[in-house]
Amino acid sequence: MKFDENYSDPKPGESLIRVSLAGICGTDLEILDGYMAYHGVLGHEFVGVVEKSSNPDMIGKRVVGEINAGCNNCDYCKKGMNRHCPNRTVLGILKRDGAFAEFLSLPEENLHVIPDSISDPQAVFVEPLAAAFEIKEQISLNPDWQVAVVGDGRLAQMICQVLKLSCPNVTCFGRHRNKLSLLEPFGIATKIGINSSDEQLYDLVVEATGSNSGFTDTMKLVKPRGTVILKSTIASRKNLDLTPTIINEITLVGSRCGLFKPAIDALATKMVIVYSMIDSTFPLNEFSKAIEHAKKPDTLKVFLKP
Amino acid sequence: MKFDENYSDPKPGESLIRVSLAGICGTDLEILDGYMAYHGVLGHEFVGVVEKSSNPDMIGKRVVGEINAGCNNCDYCKKGMNRHCPNRTVLGILKRDGAFAEFLSLPEENLHVIPDSISDPQAVFVEPLAAAFEIKEQISLNPDWQVAVVGDGRLAQMICQVLKLSCPNVTCFGRHRNKLSLLEPFGIATKIGINSSDEQLYDLVVEATGSNSGFTDTMKLVKPRGTVILKSTIASRKNLDLTPTIINEITLVGSRCGLFKPAIDALATKMVIVYSMIDSTFPLNEFSKAIEHAKKPDTLKVFLKP
Repeated sequence: MKFDENYSDPKPGESLIRVSLAGICGTDLEILDGYMAYHGVLGHEFVGVVEKSSNPDMIGKRVVGEINAGCNNCDYCKKGMNRHCPNRTVLGILKRDGAFAEFLSLPEENLHVIPDSISDPQAVFVEPLAAAFEIKEQISLNPDWQVAVVGDGRLAQMICQVLKLSCPNVTCFGRHRNKLSLLEPFGIATKIGINSSDEQLYDLVVEATGSNSGFTDTMKLVKPRGTVILKSTIASRKNLDLTPTIINEITLVGSRCGLFKPAIDALATKMVIVYSMIDSTFPLNEFSKAIEHAKKPDTLKVFLKP
Repeated sequence: MKFDENYSDPKPGESLIRVSLAGICGTDLEILDGYMAYHGVLGHEFVGVVEKSSNPDMIGKRVVGEINAGCNNCDYCKKGMNRHCPNRTVLGILKRDGAFAEFLSLPEENLHVIPDSISDPQAVFVEPLAAAFEIKEQISLNPDWQVAVVGDGRLAQMICQVLKLSCPNVTCFGRHRNKLSLLEPFGIATKIGINSSDEQLYDLVVEATGSNSGFTDTMKLVKPRGTVILKSTIASRKNLDLTPTIINEITLVGSRCGLFKPAIDALATKMVIVYSMIDSTFPLNEFSKAIEHAKKPDTLKVFLKP
């Protein structure tokens, strides 16, 4: 955790943001387990207020921020693909201190002002919700599709809601009754465990568990010639079997961060509802306690408040 | 190996074919190593002459045959996707005796008459060449793409030639100078080993080795947001790492058998040349010797002649 004195001034082109609220994500827990070999300040889901900026209009604004900061010089940045810039830093993940702190710094172009209709707790969901909307940027959803989401965690819940906007038939395959029950008000079918009648039934399956067993389940559910979205990094990588991918000619689409605008719009217009996913809020100085709580299987979104 | 008496009459709707020449494929070698748990007669690349058929016009015709036989009743078969029929048999691979025999039987609709301009040895390449053309059915090739093929075996060679028809910039990454040298007359660049300057350079990469190291190389070569075709079943499945797929938002497309017509047309019009890939021909009764020879790393296509 860093404090004021480390952020006396933001770098040129960047703004200093006082963090109001930050969210703990599965990726944070994976990084703490050694994934990505990152050793800086964690945290990439946040809402805050601009404290210092080269743009005086931004000062005092309530903002969220896209987490990838490109070099603005390479071919990817020139094509607007700074999320794939080979020289990028990523807030709380790669070479850039994150949001589990009083302050953070991000390029001004990464910031999005949050409308008053979106509360601070809702705003913390913009980053993971943008990751859910990324699916719609990558593939063309067909409303006739049978869609399955494997996993019932926070990201899986948002993916279910986002897909339901385009496809009426969405089924969530999870393991936790308390989490699955949150999806029922949205008309999303829920199942614990896969029956033989579910196998090869789905045109589109989203893997949102990040586990080998989730990947195995995903490959059981998807139809021949169907599409799989890989939404969670699969940290454990033993015995991953790609044979069904080839025999059944499955398309696997890796999917990471998304643009923030569709996520902000969906929250502002209440097309996506995130309140039911809030679990608890810990003060930032109880970081370890918060992480331990977030690790429990039944926990939903845990916030840290500086 | 089965002989005459086992095939006195073909099943209804099927034709009996006297095998003229059959080819040994990497999949045959994998099956012999235990992949697919298949225990019938091997062999799925062949050319032969129709001996018996319910259609008298077919008798005496020189044919090749699509290897997947669907049930003609399920939803997949009704959509023309009998290659993905859940009840299918597959010649020499799944519940249907194959081509390393004097005779084989296939549904009449699977057969394609071979024009005189295609010799028997060329015709044996129709099946694997169709698998190479399948890539063009699955994705839309962009002529501006930088294309890489990982692997220099028989299938990889055909894939290189097929992709070169649509994309001028094709590079084959292999391990065998003798095999790579066969590609140079077609204007296909060849490399042994990956330099740092090759990494993330390619819009499309085809994995055609079926090995873990081939998959690792493929993931090094492909650009962020690029496409990977998985053309070989990856029999060994330890430590396959899908993390780069997600971080770099790669699309992986599993690709198996293709339609025969484009392959027959390409051979007839000499758009694809396969003669240089022929290694040797063994009599069928020297099956074991032929397999041992086919297993050697420098060997190209080995034929069996009943």
